[in-house]
Amino acid sequence: METTPLNPSRRRLLAGSAGALAAAGLGATGIARAADPAPKPAASAAKPLPPYAAWKDADSLIVHSANTIETRRSAFGDGVVTPSRQLYVRNNLPPPDAAILDDRDAWKVEILGVKHPRTLTVGELKTLGMETLATVLQCSGNGRRFFPHKPSGTQWEVGAAGCVIWTGVPVRALVDYLGGLDGTPTYMTGTGGEVLPEGLDPKSLLVERSVPREAMQDAMLAWEMNSEPLTLAHGAPLRLIVPGYTGVNNVKYLKRLAFTVEQSPAKIQQTSYRLTPMDAKSGPDQPSVWTMEPKSWITAPGADGKAVKAGRAIVRGVAFGGMHAVKHVDVSIDGGKTWKRAALIGPDLGKYAWRQFALPVELSAGQHMLVSRVEDTEGNVQVEKRFDNLRGYVNNSWRDHGLAINVS
Amino acid sequence: METTPLNPSRRRLLAGSAGALAAAGLGATGIARAADPAPKPAASAAKPLPPYAAWKDADSLIVHSANTIETRRSAFGDGVVTPSRQLYVRNNLPPPDAAILDDRDAWKVEILGVKHPRTLTVGELKTLGMETLATVLQCSGNGRRFFPHKPSGTQWEVGAAGCVIWTGVPVRALVDYLGGLDGTPTYMTGTGGEVLPEGLDPKSLLVERSVPREAMQDAMLAWEMNSEPLTLAHGAPLRLIVPGYTGVNNVKYLKRLAFTVEQSPAKIQQTSYRLTPMDAKSGPDQPSVWTMEPKSWITAPGADGKAVKAGRAIVRGVAFGGMHAVKHVDVSIDGGKTWKRAALIGPDLGKYAWRQFALPVELSAGQHMLVSRVEDTEGNVQVEKRFDNLRGYVNNSWRDHGLAINVS
Repeated sequence: METTPLNPSRRRLLAGSAGALAAAGLGATGIARAADPAPKPAASAAKPLPPYAAWKDADSLIVHSANTIETRRSAFGDGVVTPSRQLYVRNNLPPPDAAILDDRDAWKVEILGVKHPRTLTVGELKTLGMETLATVLQCSGNGRRFFPHKPSGTQWEVGAAGCVIWTGVPVRALVDYLGGLDGTPTYMTGTGGEVLPEGLDPKSLLVERSVPREAMQDAMLAWEMNSEPLTLAHGAPLRLIVPGYTGVNNVKYLKRLAFTVEQSPAKIQQTSYRLTPMDAKSGPDQPSVWTMEPKSWITAPGADGKAVKAGRAIVRGVAFGGMHAVKHVDVSIDGGKTWKRAALIGPDLGKYAWRQFALPVELSAGQHMLVSRVEDTEGNVQVEKRFDNLRGYVNNSWRDHGLAINVS
Repeated sequence: METTPLNPSRRRLLAGSAGALAAAGLGATGIARAADPAPKPAASAAKPLPPYAAWKDADSLIVHSANTIETRRSAFGDGVVTPSRQLYVRNNLPPPDAAILDDRDAWKVEILGVKHPRTLTVGELKTLGMETLATVLQCSGNGRRFFPHKPSGTQWEVGAAGCVIWTGVPVRALVDYLGGLDGTPTYMTGTGGEVLPEGLDPKSLLVERSVPREAMQDAMLAWEMNSEPLTLAHGAPLRLIVPGYTGVNNVKYLKRLAFTVEQSPAKIQQTSYRLTPMDAKSGPDQPSVWTMEPKSWITAPGADGKAVKAGRAIVRGVAFGGMHAVKHVDVSIDGGKTWKRAALIGPDLGKYAWRQFALPVELSAGQHMLVSRVEDTEGNVQVEKRFDNLRGYVNNSWRDHGLAINVS
């Protein structure tokens, strides 16, 4: 049995090609299956995990490249927290040398834009305060594969995301300790400690991201993920966590945190990670990719490629609001024609975490398109259609993320 | 720097022995250090992990034997959930052959004492309902090392415990599906699927435990732990989870669940795991080791054996109520003379989970005895003194679990 994501736009795109349609095995039932004739990443020959992520669970992952590793849709499990070994990886540059972990507490971070700017070690940070917080970590490009215009970049499906528990010092506590903010900066800007290749304009490579200053309220500098010391793959020794904001804003190997009037001049801020309409040019006049929107997807049954038997089954998945808590999730097994409210199950880890949902259903033999749609506590509903944008960011279309299963 | 648990009773026991006192380095400061001249398990030569647990993180663990593996006090982390790789293991018998995992969904469990008794596969169970629940899993003998009479059995310190997220079918849903209970059974009895050696009385070895029937309300049959399929080390393919009850009651490799009028005739029920006073004989007239009592311990700073610097530090640890949620935790850095209320931090995973707590303190140079004391929402307070019992079960004395640190 094949399970593939629904992509009606691509189906339309391909509708002129009888060959492609035949290759995708679209039947007369009208039940949609993804009509992508290209090999699925999940099915392509497995690339090895890169050395810095060799400790991960290869069976749960799709290795797109040494710096882009995706969690399989079937590998999230039903325990709310994504195990570290299954969590996706996306690095904008190769990680620093592992030697930076020889003495984690000695790592230095410079704090600017406060009344008493200074450089602190991680060891010092650990005495200033401690909080533990669950957040959805999601790459800005998660779901890119479902854009019909095939934007460049990693062709993530659902798995450039996870729900993770961070421990560190709240940015608020740190700022208080340094006398408060200096003036009224507009942005909080984090700078990564990756080593930049020589001979190139640093601004073209530097991983430095600015987010609106108010994001500091719930942000933290984290040294631990899922109860273990941070790993190099995920930003050790110190990572900026900006709850509700896409992955790139959660700067790894953090060497500077500055409260600034302007956004970073780095390319990654000025022109990359912009929500640029299809007919426009990426640049600072386009919206930056910052906060996440309501999104959910089905993880079972059938995502593991195993045959689904007709009869009673429990459809389940994950749902999050981005900046607000999940209010409820509706599930459809007929591609969105009819909906039923799913139960939210498992512990609630807070508004920035995802919730699991489950709905018992009776599955008849044949093909079914499973989709889910989340609404947050502010009334924001997951959209049916993605916002098409040049680089394929923040796809949260419920239709794009459907799971086609074959029940026998 | 050495960090050792406080054990005043043992100190008294040893008070006649000048040699033992000198060996323990008790100074004139009056600050207690554990006066146990025996080698600490944590410091003894490392035994290798057994093959079925070879995937665990050896650095975080103390291997007492192939079937008893403890988490180091310094290895719990601050992220609420204990990672599977760090979680303790305690098997009453060697685990079954790993071949039982070749087809997890085919594993069978017999359900008795219901209106329509029958045998179900794990695959069927997965269609009946699903819940996710965090519980403290704690071996009945956790803290045994602090009993002054040196009871036989594994000399666990704090680390035969963890906070884990389980996914499975609620026992309630299963019983409903089978027509409800047959009559009014007094107990819920789970039977493990370990292979028993031939030629011995099965009752002397069978892992079969009975708990009061009302425990079924929150119990589940679990196939997943921490978002991953259960491992052989932790009871795969199916484990009975009885929230609030000590580890032994959470029967692994579950092959039968029966609602019964009598307790199991197995030795593990009849004479083992009884809270037998020092001057009595273990047997069915003594209380069975069932529910857990309020307990907490400090995990940092200093538990990792690293030097603690004078000045500001954040004392932290874990606390649980057993059957009720944590109300608050008090912390003392002077061995219980003065107390301050700690903050509960991190996500609350429900009343059967543990909470993390944190208290910022100023540590002066010298020795400090860090202790914590939890109170649950019903007003039950963690006791100062353990209940001395023959086999050294359920030690929840806050004094026994103190952490002595040397600040320089």
